[in-house]
Amino acid sequence: MTQRVRVQCFGVTRDGIGAGEEQDYERPFGHVDPGDLFAWRFATGSWINRSDLVGTRGIDDYIERDYARGIGAEIMGRNKFGPIRGPWPNYEWQGWWGEEPPFHTPVFVLTHYVRPSFSLSDTTFHFLDTTPHEALEQAKTAAEGRDVRIGGGVTTIREFLEADLIDEMHIAVAPYELGDGIRLWTNPDELTDRYHLERVPSPSGVVHHFFWRR
Amino acid sequence: MTQRVRVQCFGVTRDGIGAGEEQDYERPFGHVDPGDLFAWRFATGSWINRSDLVGTRGIDDYIERDYARGIGAEIMGRNKFGPIRGPWPNYEWQGWWGEEPPFHTPVFVLTHYVRPSFSLSDTTFHFLDTTPHEALEQAKTAAEGRDVRIGGGVTTIREFLEADLIDEMHIAVAPYELGDGIRLWTNPDELTDRYHLERVPSPSGVVHHFFWRR
Repeated sequence: MTQRVRVQCFGVTRDGIGAGEEQDYERPFGHVDPGDLFAWRFATGSWINRSDLVGTRGIDDYIERDYARGIGAEIMGRNKFGPIRGPWPNYEWQGWWGEEPPFHTPVFVLTHYVRPSFSLSDTTFHFLDTTPHEALEQAKTAAEGRDVRIGGGVTTIREFLEADLIDEMHIAVAPYELGDGIRLWTNPDELTDRYHLERVPSPSGVVHHFFWRR
Repeated sequence: MTQRVRVQCFGVTRDGIGAGEEQDYERPFGHVDPGDLFAWRFATGSWINRSDLVGTRGIDDYIERDYARGIGAEIMGRNKFGPIRGPWPNYEWQGWWGEEPPFHTPVFVLTHYVRPSFSLSDTTFHFLDTTPHEALEQAKTAAEGRDVRIGGGVTTIREFLEADLIDEMHIAVAPYELGDGIRLWTNPDELTDRYHLERVPSPSGVVHHFFWRR
């Protein structure tokens, strides 16, 4: 199997917005409500934080339960890791995810302010001040033949798209508009010169957009 | 996790036909052409017999690559295993799948004519002359906590539905009719008293039908 570079389960609004302004400790997505953006994920039977056994088992669930499959490393931007900007005041901040982050692989955080690696359960966070190309090389090695997920946020995905480093991308377009925020695209058809694009409306209201290289 | 009983990637025509009459050694589906019925699977990037790297990576591929995930055993009817009826003339017939069957788990074949178990690669075939309930008990034990796939054919799935033993079912409805053959249903809505039913049309032309218990 070829080692692929994939975006999965990333959410944007119908007008392409995947994150809001004014991110802070309480609001990882700023003014964007993740409860709206990711409502389709939270409703699935496979959603990791689900304690009951209810939840949908249709198309959204197939996509949700594929999230970790075959993934050996993730690359994320610093703003996905946390709300702190500039030099780290200390190393107390360890991400939004508590003692059991949902990655279970090495995670490479792109930042101009590197800090020591640390582990929480079976996820290890590394900090890199480097280019997308070089980060991807390290992540591919760490993934030991498995795929690398580009985890976001919006800016990081755009950088990897601009460097033409992404092989496959799944974006769930939520059925509402926001008007302002950080935009992944003006229109997904921007990408169809390089990618096949398959749109699949889900009964939950989101439209799944699947991209793979031509 | 609860141990589930699932049907996956089973194909029927728009008029509910999943297998044809007059099965023989050359035609596992009788007069039904599997190239038509399963065209959506064969086109995916994850189709197991694919030697190149092309193939779709959209919704059909998510479903195809989920086929083996979490499955610890399969139950199939004798007519899925082969075209021979009545007592076995000998034990030369070992299924349609060659030296590397796609199951990679114990497989329980329901038949009135039992024969010794045998293994091909990491698939072991067992032969049981018993009820769906009892077969399922054995398969669940063999699956060691993982799910059990009801692999078909049509008659076997109907028996397990009648015994109310199926938790989830994915049926891909192909975009054509055949008129005659072995029918899974007259109409999928027959099952909605017991199951949620989600219909998702794929760009490939099939309509994925996902059932899960109410």
